[in-house]
Amino acid sequence: MTSKGHFITFEGIDGSGKSTQARMLADHLRAQGHDVILTREPGGSPGAEEIRALVLQGDPDRWSAETELLLFTAARRDHMERLIQPAIDKGQIVICDRFADSTRMYQGLSRGDLRAKVDTLHTLMIGREPDLTLLIDMDPATGLARAKGRQGTEERFEDFGTELQEKMRAGFLSLASEFAHRFQTLDGARDMDAVAHDVRRVVARHLSSSG
Amino acid sequence: MTSKGHFITFEGIDGSGKSTQARMLADHLRAQGHDVILTREPGGSPGAEEIRALVLQGDPDRWSAETELLLFTAARRDHMERLIQPAIDKGQIVICDRFADSTRMYQGLSRGDLRAKVDTLHTLMIGREPDLTLLIDMDPATGLARAKGRQGTEERFEDFGTELQEKMRAGFLSLASEFAHRFQTLDGARDMDAVAHDVRRVVARHLSSSG
Repeated sequence: MTSKGHFITFEGIDGSGKSTQARMLADHLRAQGHDVILTREPGGSPGAEEIRALVLQGDPDRWSAETELLLFTAARRDHMERLIQPAIDKGQIVICDRFADSTRMYQGLSRGDLRAKVDTLHTLMIGREPDLTLLIDMDPATGLARAKGRQGTEERFEDFGTELQEKMRAGFLSLASEFAHRFQTLDGARDMDAVAHDVRRVVARHLSSSG
Repeated sequence: MTSKGHFITFEGIDGSGKSTQARMLADHLRAQGHDVILTREPGGSPGAEEIRALVLQGDPDRWSAETELLLFTAARRDHMERLIQPAIDKGQIVICDRFADSTRMYQGLSRGDLRAKVDTLHTLMIGREPDLTLLIDMDPATGLARAKGRQGTEERFEDFGTELQEKMRAGFLSLASEFAHRFQTLDGARDMDAVAHDVRRVVARHLSSSG
């Protein structure tokens, strides 16, 4: 155990298997004796979950992209100050399914040219970036087929269709290039155990190098 | 009628009579044939009212000052883009009971030194200031006695007590000095018809000068 915690996020398009990989990593690290918090966004803390419900329920057009961005940033601030940062301060490993990179993607790229506002808001009100971000990369046709095969809670994004998912895949790959120091891109189209093996290898390397 | 609308806000501590003055001004301008929208913050549009409920209901400490600031800014963005700006674009007179100056006061001054963040968020996500702001100034002891005499919807602020209300009065007067080009400070301790007379005089001068 280290005296300082770690903040690890998973990103990727719907159906990429990132939520499964986040859970498998949490189980693996707990089996190794690590103190792990597994959480997700939007939401993750009681207040943030209330904001998530306000954003995602009802008519998808009830909020503008800008209002939605402010609501997601409010949820992230609550999640960060009530759950993530205290856990890191206690030396825990926080694994989060989606974080600010999803906002950079979904609000910054797909819904108007808001990327500059996304970044300014993040710097102003959140500040912290993950120590390590695992991008589970996948061909959108494969991801969409997987996403349709389960009971989705993110129908809004799944409904965007393959063309927009292609754009989002490209957006995530672009973020991985922009933030190369913390991103690791893994091929998610393989058997999930093969992907999980890579995830464990990358995380073990990160934990040993950052003490 | 002018082809371009007007955006007039009322500010002041609780019990100052600003809500009554806002309503009396709306009635007066309508009687003169103006097309008037009377609204209030936090809230004012269906989405913003939902956010208002999320912030003001429940434990007052459930949100940090920063999260509350983001939620109020989200509500204001919705209110501005769905109600205020479209009305101004149609040439209507929008009268709003509280606006960004209340956020500068309550979040910026009373709950941590957030004023710089309040201003950056406003510039980034709201942009517009009122054309005219009427500050109904009053001795806090008088205001508090009035506020306690009615069924309050803002118990949180009223509970702050006289000392904090003194600080808030000083804060509003400081904003009036900082934004002297759009603020008009009126003595609210007088009979409400005397205050209303001053309000009408200031607004008439504003409407005639800005055409």
